[in-house]
Amino acid sequence: MAPIITLTTDFGLADSYVASLKGVILSIAPSARIVDISHQVPPQDILHGAYLLATAWRYFPKGTIHLAVVDPGVGAGRNAIAVSAKGHTFFAPDNGLLTMALGGTLPAGAKAFVIENPRYRLDPVSSVFHGRDIFAPAAAYCAQGLAIQELGKPLSRIVTLPLSAPHRRADGSVLGTVIHVDTFGNLVTNVTQRHIKGDITIGVAGKSIAGLSRTYAEGKGLLALWGSSGYLEVAVRNGNAAKRLGVKRGDEVVLRLEKAG
Amino acid sequence: MAPIITLTTDFGLADSYVASLKGVILSIAPSARIVDISHQVPPQDILHGAYLLATAWRYFPKGTIHLAVVDPGVGAGRNAIAVSAKGHTFFAPDNGLLTMALGGTLPAGAKAFVIENPRYRLDPVSSVFHGRDIFAPAAAYCAQGLAIQELGKPLSRIVTLPLSAPHRRADGSVLGTVIHVDTFGNLVTNVTQRHIKGDITIGVAGKSIAGLSRTYAEGKGLLALWGSSGYLEVAVRNGNAAKRLGVKRGDEVVLRLEKAG
Amino acid sequence: MAPIITLTTDFGLADSYVASLKGVILSIAPSARIVDISHQVPPQDILHGAYLLATAWRYFPKGTIHLAVVDPGVGAGRNAIAVSAKGHTFFAPDNGLLTMALGGTLPAGAKAFVIENPRYRLDPVSSVFHGRDIFAPAAAYCAQGLAIQELGKPLSRIVTLPLSAPHRRADGSVLGTVIHVDTFGNLVTNVTQRHIKGDITIGVAGKSIAGLSRTYAEGKGLLALWGSSGYLEVAVRNGNAAKRLGVKRGDEVVLRLEKAG
Repeated sequence: MAPIITLTTDFGLADSYVASLKGVILSIAPSARIVDISHQVPPQDILHGAYLLATAWRYFPKGTIHLAVVDPGVGAGRNAIAVSAKGHTFFAPDNGLLTMALGGTLPAGAKAFVIENPRYRLDPVSSVFHGRDIFAPAAAYCAQGLAIQELGKPLSRIVTLPLSAPHRRADGSVLGTVIHVDTFGNLVTNVTQRHIKGDITIGVAGKSIAGLSRTYAEGKGLLALWGSSGYLEVAVRNGNAAKRLGVKRGDEVVLRLEKAG
Repeated sequence: MAPIITLTTDFGLADSYVASLKGVILSIAPSARIVDISHQVPPQDILHGAYLLATAWRYFPKGTIHLAVVDPGVGAGRNAIAVSAKGHTFFAPDNGLLTMALGGTLPAGAKAFVIENPRYRLDPVSSVFHGRDIFAPAAAYCAQGLAIQELGKPLSRIVTLPLSAPHRRADGSVLGTVIHVDTFGNLVTNVTQRHIKGDITIGVAGKSIAGLSRTYAEGKGLLALWGSSGYLEVAVRNGNAAKRLGVKRGDEVVLRLEKAG
Repeated sequence: MAPIITLTTDFGLADSYVASLKGVILSIAPSARIVDISHQVPPQDILHGAYLLATAWRYFPKGTIHLAVVDPGVGAGRNAIAVSAKGHTFFAPDNGLLTMALGGTLPAGAKAFVIENPRYRLDPVSSVFHGRDIFAPAAAYCAQGLAIQELGKPLSRIVTLPLSAPHRRADGSVLGTVIHVDTFGNLVTNVTQRHIKGDITIGVAGKSIAGLSRTYAEGKGLLALWGSSGYLEVAVRNGNAAKRLGVKRGDEVVLRLEKAG
């Protein structure tokens, strides 16, 4: 079956930058099937790109190649890397963009390599567009069967971003953080089911939400529920929670256990 | 030839939701070709999604699978349905989203089934993202050759939305309605050529337009013409009619027959 | 290998217009692979579309078909054309949209034809949507192997837009023009490396930039560098130069040679 290459970038869809990548890929790997994850990562927002990649990659079949380019340091010395992990292969600048997809750091059995072999890039290489000139060719050659260790020397560590985790406070409540605001204005937090036992009340932006809903259609106003990626979300039925509450990424949510758990 | 699956959703392109659907589809139906109709349906606007699907599906070859997810009632008891009609197959929540594509209701010869067979979905199923966990797998299995009657029990009726139709008034004029405002600000009405005989004057937002233009490039200001889907449109040459006139979906247009018809 | 068809339009992604084109193409050329260059050309902005096509087409393999539709004159008498040049084939309204991709005019060895053969279009043809009814079918038939001379009579000239070029002034400075503002707010000028020898100072919007940077990550504020398409760009590190400077397409930049060149 033809290899799949996914793309996650901050290039936007208005310019021809994404198309240049696709043209380069199809020139090297004519049968590749290219799937956009998103090109609307806010410019140079590595954490946002990391979240989008982390929530999508696992739905693709094993053997998929994921190319992610959010690259504020392009041309300024950061490594380009290829990482084989969990049956998938990831190409990205070594700036933390893969942190969430990899679960925080290189998992057991993962292999990482620097992308540096001049045979597998465009010539000349622009100092401002490695997505097109270095990452896309490398990913395409690997889609054609090139082993990633041919790209360059192995790495035992890659750059990771500190991922926020909820923490339990002295009073027993749990302090979580909004890690993503989605298109609908839903507030995705870093709280998962293993942080919560029993009924809870959620405090956010001075508001209190008693108990969890099962769907977005329940209740009339502000609600909290388990979102589609397994994180606790705060939402507004038929509305935009981020706008209603004035909450943004990095803001806090507090979870308090009810007496009758 | 590899099956085509089209997608129409309100997920937007900024998040990874659309990519999750595509990953699920390609995991089950590796040779499927996926074509986006639109992901920019305004959140939960079923009527808007119904219009976009209705104006695009007929241009795809017979055998195409159309997956549409605008789903404010996700997880809250509405059916998921698969409908075979006119040589195409449609997958959607049973909330009226297929109404316009099907011409108002199930046409003769159409077959509808509930999507409920647990063999053809992800496990577990999230209560908030049936697009990924129920609709995408069902469509993908059918792209692989599964007969839609395997998905669940047959339905003799599906939910339909009341579609507005122009009506003739006592004075002989015809009252139409704006059913869509497109990207360019063109006002698409529910008036088709069978509602009009002879020369007309169009009244909209207190303005009067004498006669029909043949193209958007005719005239200097406000004009009316037959749009690309066969509906009467009101447009502004090199401009945005919706903004100029302050008109939105649901607003009225009046058509008056000229004396010399 | 299946033929590639790229699309460049001002249709936007919110409506179903792009999907209609794709459906028509896949109905005629089932194995075609369709790649979007951009659908976010500002409405009817031929020059903008010309720039996007010009910066992307060369990255696709030889044999690629490029379909571009920015068509303010649709239905009003302008020709539809197919042009074979540089190993690629271009389909567009004859309104200058191909000017930049072709390097200013038809290059040596290029062949141009009017698209007029009624066998290779939809029936009926809408007077408002030739993209769907004329261009997409013509491109799809050629993807299936039809020779472009079957589409209509040959043309010895096509419509071209006057392309701005930098010019040298009496004092030795070079006057360039902003030809594109990209998603990031970077100002792309018409100045290339052959216009510049030695160190320069760039004047734009009353500001002065001494020397060229190598990457977007250098310096702290306003900078100039060679962009990914070979043009001189003015940018702001982690910022938006167009907004910061209030500069738009068509505005001037001045390049002055430093004493020590």
